[in-house]
Amino acid sequence: MSKKVIAILRGDYIGPEIMEAGLTVLKAASADSNFQYQTIDYPFGGEAIDKYGDPLPQQTIEGCKQADAVLLSAIGGPKWDNASKRPEKGLLEIRNRLGLFSNIRPTKVDPNLSRFSPVKQEVLDNTDFVIVRELTSGIYFGTPRKQNSQDALDTSTYTVQEIKRILKIGFDMSMRRRKHVTVVDKANVLATSRLWRKVTEEFKQEYPEVTVDYCYVDAAAMKIITHPTSFDVLITANLFGDILSDEASVLTGSLGTIPSMSAGTTGPNLYEPIHGSAPDIAGKGIADPISMIQSIEMMLRESFDESYIADKIAEAVQKTIEEGITTPDIGGTATTQEVTTNIVKNLKG
Amino acid sequence: MSKKVIAILRGDYIGPEIMEAGLTVLKAASADSNFQYQTIDYPFGGEAIDKYGDPLPQQTIEGCKQADAVLLSAIGGPKWDNASKRPEKGLLEIRNRLGLFSNIRPTKVDPNLSRFSPVKQEVLDNTDFVIVRELTSGIYFGTPRKQNSQDALDTSTYTVQEIKRILKIGFDMSMRRRKHVTVVDKANVLATSRLWRKVTEEFKQEYPEVTVDYCYVDAAAMKIITHPTSFDVLITANLFGDILSDEASVLTGSLGTIPSMSAGTTGPNLYEPIHGSAPDIAGKGIADPISMIQSIEMMLRESFDESYIADKIAEAVQKTIEEGITTPDIGGTATTQEVTTNIVKNLKG
Ligand SMILES: CC(C)[C@H](C(=O)O)[C@@H](O)C(=O)O
Ligand SMILES: CC(C)[C@H](C(=O)O)[C@@H](O)C(=O)O
Repeated sequence: MSKKVIAILRGDYIGPEIMEAGLTVLKAASADSNFQYQTIDYPFGGEAIDKYGDPLPQQTIEGCKQADAVLLSAIGGPKWDNASKRPEKGLLEIRNRLGLFSNIRPTKVDPNLSRFSPVKQEVLDNTDFVIVRELTSGIYFGTPRKQNSQDALDTSTYTVQEIKRILKIGFDMSMRRRKHVTVVDKANVLATSRLWRKVTEEFKQEYPEVTVDYCYVDAAAMKIITHPTSFDVLITANLFGDILSDEASVLTGSLGTIPSMSAGTTGPNLYEPIHGSAPDIAGKGIADPISMIQSIEMMLRESFDESYIADKIAEAVQKTIEEGITTPDIGGTATTQEVTTNIVKNLKG
Repeated sequence: MSKKVIAILRGDYIGPEIMEAGLTVLKAASADSNFQYQTIDYPFGGEAIDKYGDPLPQQTIEGCKQADAVLLSAIGGPKWDNASKRPEKGLLEIRNRLGLFSNIRPTKVDPNLSRFSPVKQEVLDNTDFVIVRELTSGIYFGTPRKQNSQDALDTSTYTVQEIKRILKIGFDMSMRRRKHVTVVDKANVLATSRLWRKVTEEFKQEYPEVTVDYCYVDAAAMKIITHPTSFDVLITANLFGDILSDEASVLTGSLGTIPSMSAGTTGPNLYEPIHGSAPDIAGKGIADPISMIQSIEMMLRESFDESYIADKIAEAVQKTIEEGITTPDIGGTATTQEVTTNIVKNLKG
């Protein structure tokens, strides 16, 4: 079997620290398996701005296109706040250039960590939903976009085809879950949302087993906190998904542990932690590596069909959390290194 | 002193029930005062669709324009889901026609009610912020807006003048509070947000005492739940304000008690509960009247400078909550009528 190529974008501030941890776990977990891989580093984000004046240099996008999967760590930070092309620009571009039109964010509350959630235990119990966010259209990419001295303008667009392909991701996912799709929109105001509803009404015919409902984005922002168990799969436009998936992430009480996946139809998927580059704790060796380790777990499952190795990692992470060997963000006193070493140890038993 | 005219839009489902309660309290509270007023009913929302085929008939907009304040109860409901012009359309139109470019939503957690909040007590303690939402521009009103068989498009626009006037509302409010303004935007993606930041940077020079910071809307959606005490006044665009103010409202645990105000430069302000028309409990006599009563309190304070009467109402409401004479939404077994009667009783001492 040929080696899988993983493009590595190490990121900024705590980015490289947790990437290192993740790759250590990947190496250990796949050591005795048939899974063969090779990693190639590419400059991206702040690091790439420093070296090449561009958050997404040509070599990076070319390398990623050739890869079987892309692993990205958190990027950006105050250092590049005034750069002419900021790190986040690279993020938008890589999504666009790799055709990563879907972003998948699981929200599952781990009973071992829910004490860190701002939300009450009884509300959280059994929360387990996924937000499927459209990632390469809507107001993020629509044109015209203009800013003059007197006014500014942004445009949100969606085509039927763009809506259908993201619906397909979400509906397929719901078939492997509880067969319940909620389309989140603002159809009482937006034309794009009304098109989403129209397309959904047709599209759902192909999935007679799936229960479909609609929820306005303002109501969804409430319901995610008050009734998180009422959701299974939420499908939504780029901007709404940005807001709601960040909101949803706080339910878990453990931002530092949550992975995400961005996927297209062809080409590599991209896996990354959902949190930022945390400049305040960079270099202290206390960044939580679990988000990156679980991003790698997700990659093994979704891109490489290696659920055996992924399960092993998942169990080792779980055991380490149960042992209380965690970084300060989830109540422990361990370092990034100690958590990583312990996860590697737990892989063996 | 001439009589103040209050335009009454009774609303749908539980709308008329809580309006009745509110007007009973207003009458009792102003009985022995110099405050003289007259109410005039106008058809609006679902009721107006049924009677005139239009959620905002001509007579209603004319009447509201002549009034000193507008009191609106919750509108809409499943009955009009397929109406060619839906009740919400009337809401957008009345905002536009009355020039109500600002919407003000206080989020203050009442220690007597926080047990109904999905959020933990220790997170909520001392939460007291206001969301100032721009209400007549942005993607709600931008053109072009189109929907074809193949695609759809919405446009978000802001002019410097529109941004400045909403900033003024928020900054002035912060001067009467903790002098801290947070502008919430998505400046890493949107041109309109970048214009907001530019205008804010200039505008804030006029308020040297105010601390100003910026927060991306996705981060704000997290922080409202994780660190609600970090906010004083949030100022934001129409769509972001829609989402965040609904999200914020759940912190209080008592949706049924929260008022809001929409204001322009000239003409009457509009006061309304933030919740919907609750078709499921309509006619049962158990709708919480406190949101409407507190909307009236806000009207007395802001439109009529009658803070003496407003304070009296506030205290009577507070006392009634402390006595536990509340509707089921906040843990009681009282009816709308009983809560109202008790508040009236408490007005007296
Ligand atoms: C950095 C920013 C442009 C980005 C987005 O809004 O998509 C981020 O918030 C995210 O969700 O990945
Ligand atoms: C009904 C709807 C159009 C309205 C809005 O989005 O403004 C409502 O959600 C609100 O916040 O008053």
